[in-house]
Amino acid sequence: MENDKYVIGMDFGTLSGRAVLARCADGKILASAERKYRHGVMEAFLPDGITRLKEGTALQDPEDYPEVLEALVGELVRESGADPADIIGLAIDFTSCTVLPVDAEGRPLCSLPAYRNRPHAYVKLWKHHGAQKEAEEIGGKLGEEISSEILYPKVLEMLREDPEVYQASHRILEAADWLTWLLTGSEKRSVSMAGYKAWWSAENGFPQEGFLAKLDERLDGSKLFGKVCPVGKSIGLLNEVWARKLGLSPRTAVAAGVIDSHAGAPGSHILGKDQLMLVLGTSSVIMAFSEKPFRGMGIYGTVKDGVIPGYYGLESGVAAVGDALEWFVKSCVPASYYEQAKEKGLDIYQYLTELAGKVDPGKSRVLALDWFNGNKTPYVNTDLTGSLAGLTLQTKPEEIFRALIEATAFDARQILEIMERSEAEVRIREVTASGGIAGKNPLILQIYADILQRPVKVAAEPQTAALGSAIYAALAAGKAAGGYDSYREAVNAMSRVRDTVYMPGEEYREIYNNKYGNYQRYGAWMDTFHRREGGDGL
Amino acid sequence: MENDKYVIGMDFGTLSGRAVLARCADGKILASAERKYRHGVMEAFLPDGITRLKEGTALQDPEDYPEVLEALVGELVRESGADPADIIGLAIDFTSCTVLPVDAEGRPLCSLPAYRNRPHAYVKLWKHHGAQKEAEEIGGKLGEEISSEILYPKVLEMLREDPEVYQASHRILEAADWLTWLLTGSEKRSVSMAGYKAWWSAENGFPQEGFLAKLDERLDGSKLFGKVCPVGKSIGLLNEVWARKLGLSPRTAVAAGVIDSHAGAPGSHILGKDQLMLVLGTSSVIMAFSEKPFRGMGIYGTVKDGVIPGYYGLESGVAAVGDALEWFVKSCVPASYYEQAKEKGLDIYQYLTELAGKVDPGKSRVLALDWFNGNKTPYVNTDLTGSLAGLTLQTKPEEIFRALIEATAFDARQILEIMERSEAEVRIREVTASGGIAGKNPLILQIYADILQRPVKVAAEPQTAALGSAIYAALAAGKAAGGYDSYREAVNAMSRVRDTVYMPGEEYREIYNNKYGNYQRYGAWMDTFHRREGGDGL
Repeated sequence: MENDKYVIGMDFGTLSGRAVLARCADGKILASAERKYRHGVMEAFLPDGITRLKEGTALQDPEDYPEVLEALVGELVRESGADPADIIGLAIDFTSCTVLPVDAEGRPLCSLPAYRNRPHAYVKLWKHHGAQKEAEEIGGKLGEEISSEILYPKVLEMLREDPEVYQASHRILEAADWLTWLLTGSEKRSVSMAGYKAWWSAENGFPQEGFLAKLDERLDGSKLFGKVCPVGKSIGLLNEVWARKLGLSPRTAVAAGVIDSHAGAPGSHILGKDQLMLVLGTSSVIMAFSEKPFRGMGIYGTVKDGVIPGYYGLESGVAAVGDALEWFVKSCVPASYYEQAKEKGLDIYQYLTELAGKVDPGKSRVLALDWFNGNKTPYVNTDLTGSLAGLTLQTKPEEIFRALIEATAFDARQILEIMERSEAEVRIREVTASGGIAGKNPLILQIYADILQRPVKVAAEPQTAALGSAIYAALAAGKAAGGYDSYREAVNAMSRVRDTVYMPGEEYREIYNNKYGNYQRYGAWMDTFHRREGGDGL
Repeated sequence: MENDKYVIGMDFGTLSGRAVLARCADGKILASAERKYRHGVMEAFLPDGITRLKEGTALQDPEDYPEVLEALVGELVRESGADPADIIGLAIDFTSCTVLPVDAEGRPLCSLPAYRNRPHAYVKLWKHHGAQKEAEEIGGKLGEEISSEILYPKVLEMLREDPEVYQASHRILEAADWLTWLLTGSEKRSVSMAGYKAWWSAENGFPQEGFLAKLDERLDGSKLFGKVCPVGKSIGLLNEVWARKLGLSPRTAVAAGVIDSHAGAPGSHILGKDQLMLVLGTSSVIMAFSEKPFRGMGIYGTVKDGVIPGYYGLESGVAAVGDALEWFVKSCVPASYYEQAKEKGLDIYQYLTELAGKVDPGKSRVLALDWFNGNKTPYVNTDLTGSLAGLTLQTKPEEIFRALIEATAFDARQILEIMERSEAEVRIREVTASGGIAGKNPLILQIYADILQRPVKVAAEPQTAALGSAIYAALAAGKAAGGYDSYREAVNAMSRVRDTVYMPGEEYREIYNNKYGNYQRYGAWMDTFHRREGGDGL
């Protein structure tokens, strides 16, 4: 239609970028595209093929991002046939904390010949685990356990292992902030990453200088901190260079970047404080939104305007969901099950799901702890491990499969209940699921509905993050340009849930309440057991 | 050689009888044979194919036993070429408590046309579980948990469900005692079965009349009790009818029957109180021998002369060993492992064992509870279940396989330590293993040696029970006839262990001590957890 306006949402994941071009009026996706990063994730060598990387390293080449961005936009415009003049906004979400050092012109240090073979001049990907030592050092100084994946351990690692690169860097910033700077010429920090990964808060801003000096006297806040920009706001308009490169209008608004999993919130029709966002993938992300902050027990919720304007976003998650099921399927499912699945024309997940659907949770005695990759809430311990109890000689693989699903749901219920009991005063009425598992496994969704005792809805669009970014783009463009001024209005117009809602059943309510109590007691004991000396058998 | 004397040992198992003909001088086995029972185990129908059996039923047809006995003796004599005049003794070991009702002539009631279609007229096999209700009733009256597999629940079940059969029975006795009665015309109860399954003790004899009346006023001790005969003693000589049938001399001594697993003691060169007998099969039997009785925590040791003359035999065991490994291999080992095993020309157990042998117990975090079929000692609870803890996304099947083996060894160590701490004052210096697993899996034996911290020897003869029976036969025949008067002398002459001894290593001592501590704590918690109300998730 002649007056239709469009937005582009881009989701920069670990291995590739995905993007959608959506109509502002109704969120209809006219085109979508995906493109892999040329250098992928570098874990063993730099692109020179010579420079070896230490264990735990996960780097990227920042030049891959604009290259992918350019290719994606070109494809979206071509495929959709949209008039570039009608594309009013562009937004990106990005993995985080994914950081790189750049010079005063914003050029990545690794792109300069002098630093081409210096690992610390590259992007440290969110899952880079080279800064474990630094995380422990910082944790020791602050008196709390901190993840090696956030900003400070990564920067400290750079400073300690390659002080030259650190000194040469003008800024060390999130890839998302670097990209929006590149596109607009305006350098700002998104409150999304600043809040969750660098401890910026609406009340106190970034940590004070004294904080950095405590970690290392050489740390310099001017390299790390800057002006912030809330999500759904415009960093600026596309600069001339990039407008030309992308074939877009220089009036295109570029929104502040958002952490990729958080962008799923608008994309899965999360409006406010009575909804739980549940992103079910290899792990799960669980978010609730409140008017009051809360932080503790592995829940991080002191960032306002980081996901939904006006709200604090409380985040936790289950460290292994799809991963735990995959471990089980790969390590523990017998050959005969693969054969039977094949005979029935099903893949092994479908077959196990079919069998697990017939398991009566009131009869199966298997109880799992889903901590195959540690526990986030309440124990905040990556070292905790998974367990299977209630095994007998008659236990069947599908009972274990179902128990693993149930365990991830018990874990989610524990997070939900802690959020509700916290001073954030969360009250969850319904759950909206998204992510790879949500789209294809009704049994898992029903188990979650039964265990969480809330209706579970499912995001209609599988690319929730890219659609969410498109919604942030429409907000950044604003109503006057054909977008939106209100988050609620934008989400109501542009994203949807499926018609099918998984309602909590009565049949297993008591059984699951009992099992959940057992799950909690078993978990508490395991945590205590793990902490005691000599608990090294687990 | 002209003056050589021989004995026959017969091992009546669940599905078949096995027998050996051994030379008294050195235990050399000249012939061995096996024959399946015609009717096997009846679990669904009587032989008429019409009469349905209730769930948990496991019956046998007693006429199968003499049929198999006759066939086996015939084959042994033919195969060995031994002169029947030189066969001086015959002994049987038998599953227990395996009981049948007979009339005053010793005829099984089920063989009489009037009772042919009455389930209670048949042999109730050791693993018949139809008397669970009666076991609970008796347990309630006595204030202790008792197994449904021993004599009293089985008799009570008969009385309650078919009082006519009960009334028509002159005796209700162990199949072993029935067979020795049949062969000799002399009716005696072996102290082996009387002690372990009917609570006869050297000090007090059979339970008093008041005891039976407490269970049910109609119970009649004259049907159940009788004169006892220690093991290794003669019940009598072969009677004319059976000497003719078997083609043996009527001077052949028939020894008192022995519980099948116990007969492995002489057969695996167990001499006395410093040795632990470890029969590693689907489950394990663990026995120690002491000069003082002890009973408690699932250890039964108040029977004197029941296994080794002059000693109390303390018995417990691990309820699932081979069964737990088989469950794992069948339910949890992925297809790729079967393929890799095939490529290497190994069966899956060999392949897993090879891989498990490379697992470093100091690095693997997996800790198992081996209670897949409940726990005998110390918790005496068939309802307890197995567990796997310490699982991560990197856990490999061979780590779980090894952890399961280790868990059964920790279970055995716990039994050993409880026996040593008990008033029986057991002091174990070495372990002698026998059974199907002992013969073929050096890794398991080494793990047991490391965990039990004792040298583990292995019985040289795989048919330890049949050889053990042959030794009892030689004792029953006595030195004057060419056999032995002393158990020690007989065992030293007739049974052997292999040259290879598995010595406890130093390498893993501390690691296993720690893991054993964790196993005990984990188990204690699971037991407590299981007992508490609402603990039904396990």
